[in-house]
Amino acid sequence: MGGGRCMRYDFSKFFKETIKNEGGKIILCVLDGLGGIPSEKYEGKTELEFARTPNLDKLAKISSKGLHIPVEYGVTPGSGPSHLALFGYDPIENVIKRGVMEAMGIGILPERDEIFARGNFAKAILYENRIKVVDRRAGRLSTEKNKELCELINRNVSEIDGVKIKFFTVKEHRVCVSFLGEGLSDEIEDTDPQKDNEFLRESKPYGEPTFGKQKLSRVVNELSSLIFDILKGEESAQCILLRGFSKVPNIQSFEEKWKMKALAIASYPMYRGIARILGMDIAELKDGTLQEQITVLKSNFKKYDFFYLHFKKTDSAGEDGDFLAKVKAIEEFDSVIDDILELNPEVLAITGDHSTPSELAYHSFHPVPILIHSRSSFKDYGGRFTERDCANGSLGIIYATAIMPILLANAGRLEKFGA
Amino acid sequence: MGGGRCMRYDFSKFFKETIKNEGGKIILCVLDGLGGIPSEKYEGKTELEFARTPNLDKLAKISSKGLHIPVEYGVTPGSGPSHLALFGYDPIENVIKRGVMEAMGIGILPERDEIFARGNFAKAILYENRIKVVDRRAGRLSTEKNKELCELINRNVSEIDGVKIKFFTVKEHRVCVSFLGEGLSDEIEDTDPQKDNEFLRESKPYGEPTFGKQKLSRVVNELSSLIFDILKGEESAQCILLRGFSKVPNIQSFEEKWKMKALAIASYPMYRGIARILGMDIAELKDGTLQEQITVLKSNFKKYDFFYLHFKKTDSAGEDGDFLAKVKAIEEFDSVIDDILELNPEVLAITGDHSTPSELAYHSFHPVPILIHSRSSFKDYGGRFTERDCANGSLGIIYATAIMPILLANAGRLEKFGA
Repeated sequence: MGGGRCMRYDFSKFFKETIKNEGGKIILCVLDGLGGIPSEKYEGKTELEFARTPNLDKLAKISSKGLHIPVEYGVTPGSGPSHLALFGYDPIENVIKRGVMEAMGIGILPERDEIFARGNFAKAILYENRIKVVDRRAGRLSTEKNKELCELINRNVSEIDGVKIKFFTVKEHRVCVSFLGEGLSDEIEDTDPQKDNEFLRESKPYGEPTFGKQKLSRVVNELSSLIFDILKGEESAQCILLRGFSKVPNIQSFEEKWKMKALAIASYPMYRGIARILGMDIAELKDGTLQEQITVLKSNFKKYDFFYLHFKKTDSAGEDGDFLAKVKAIEEFDSVIDDILELNPEVLAITGDHSTPSELAYHSFHPVPILIHSRSSFKDYGGRFTERDCANGSLGIIYATAIMPILLANAGRLEKFGA
Repeated sequence: MGGGRCMRYDFSKFFKETIKNEGGKIILCVLDGLGGIPSEKYEGKTELEFARTPNLDKLAKISSKGLHIPVEYGVTPGSGPSHLALFGYDPIENVIKRGVMEAMGIGILPERDEIFARGNFAKAILYENRIKVVDRRAGRLSTEKNKELCELINRNVSEIDGVKIKFFTVKEHRVCVSFLGEGLSDEIEDTDPQKDNEFLRESKPYGEPTFGKQKLSRVVNELSSLIFDILKGEESAQCILLRGFSKVPNIQSFEEKWKMKALAIASYPMYRGIARILGMDIAELKDGTLQEQITVLKSNFKKYDFFYLHFKKTDSAGEDGDFLAKVKAIEEFDSVIDDILELNPEVLAITGDHSTPSELAYHSFHPVPILIHSRSSFKDYGGRFTERDCANGSLGIIYATAIMPILLANAGRLEKFGA
């Protein structure tokens, strides 16, 4: 069929040749969960409307404004898809699996092709020479005990058949396990029986068996036995149940895609992880305050073409349903605008990855305000940086995947298309 | 790949059966490079906002307004893609190659399947029985001499092996050569060695040799020898270097696509050429003033269904970075609105092919204002015909390829789709 590319899709597939190797610097500030909906309790205003934001107000006048649809109309996105879309990747074709997202959530910076599984410490006994699970959560053992057991395992098993293995504590009985080896496939079955008083399952390839599936399932099954052996003297847990094997996707790097060297300035592990998967450099942060982020932005400004600055507080407050805390977070961000503008970037864009209205206290499907400021951007003059004023802005309502092309255009990084 | 038709693409593929053979007349006025961005020097206004346009103001009130994206978000289009999109052709699937655009630029109205090459007159000697290029630009010989040599060649070579050949002077050492014959392919190598003191190259098929490639390369190589023979008594140049063979694309005609007989009223060669490729009739113009264009529009009004009126001055002023000249061009166009309305067309649409903000002094990626007036169009009542008011108009922000279907709908040229 005639097929339809449209800007929910991948700009770089069709306009690759127009992307230049040079041009201005771009700063993209992502205020997590930025968008809101009006609250009757607060004069029928959204958090952005209620906030006092003198600096954003000034900037909004000389910028173009709009709303973006992170993934698709009606879709409430998780952080993975919404960030991929912001960075110009089709969020439906490119998927970061849950296991990988969780690994990143506890601070693991994934390697290309690394495979993660989620797991439980469990109580088990030997029954007819097989491992039988008697308590899938090992009585919710303490996080301290979990750490102790992970260390014990890591000391005793670091590699099976050339595959590197590492255990990470998540919380209570929960762990995350990493497998790193060549040519592995994550399409293998769980060992977790999902019920007490069942045998620990043997992992097998899903569907057609391939070398990569067979190898990882063999390693996983050997690991199950080894751990039962290692833990047999322990009282609190005797085995590990694994589920949700997921491989870090092999996504084209941001630098290859957009011809820009990128630095991620994010303090939360999840966002550092996403940036890592796209091959961005990840700035080291100590306390992770916005002030520190700005300092790091300044000290690295010469070294990179693209800066992704992630601010978490707006989302956390939204998730807590705390309207005023979200207002305060927005006002905190407002206070650093001048510091950012002092750097004189060719393009400054401010937006969110999705909406988290405090009225709803969770991620939502609503479009997200965006503001783009550059020498060549349209200047809307009217309006503040709010949902309503952005709905009437000159950018209109766009798919998030259109944002990167527009930023590149503003930075003078796109050649003319055709004669 | 990800699904999703969207109206950047070809309406007539999916709704062909709804297109009627009859309906009202449509006038599409294209003010080249119409869109602008606000200028601080001029009260923070764009050219359209700064211009005094009493007639457009009146018309804008009783029209529907919007902005269009010529090719894609972030993409700065050349005239070829932007016009193809305006006429409802997918600008990515249908490409007019650079060589053809250049030929049209010097006033050649191309035939279907004609092939053009760009070329240089060069100085050459015979060395070991081969033609060796010693000066690729023949000392930038004068345009007069170029004309003289072209005439000499045209007198002596008009056809090789059934392929008609014609030389056109561009400027100084540069020429354009046309090849017209059945079944030729343009996928053949250049004869231009790109460096002095190298042999004139023999043209060969790119990739898999086919009849069409082999035939044209044979003709081109024979032409090289013939010209060296013809020019051997000349002092200023002894050979021709050819590069960038490009065929006029075989695009479905406008009339076949939209079931309307169309007349192009354009004075600049490039736009006449594009209309020609789509099979439109091309109005003869003497001085090419807007006044003359309106006269021609009037005298042909009965004979056609669709009129494409192209106005160049807005783009020229924009490219010159001359804000006030662009304002004046807009005001000039404003002065003919009543003359056009007097014809009482079923549909009058006014837009640009792309933006050329005089602030930037070149083509840009910004959406372009559009206004559509008909008996059945929505009447926005508020607003002038400006970028900002169009951003809030009832048409919204649309892909340029959606314009033709909307014009046809306004002209009563589309059947209901489905029962």
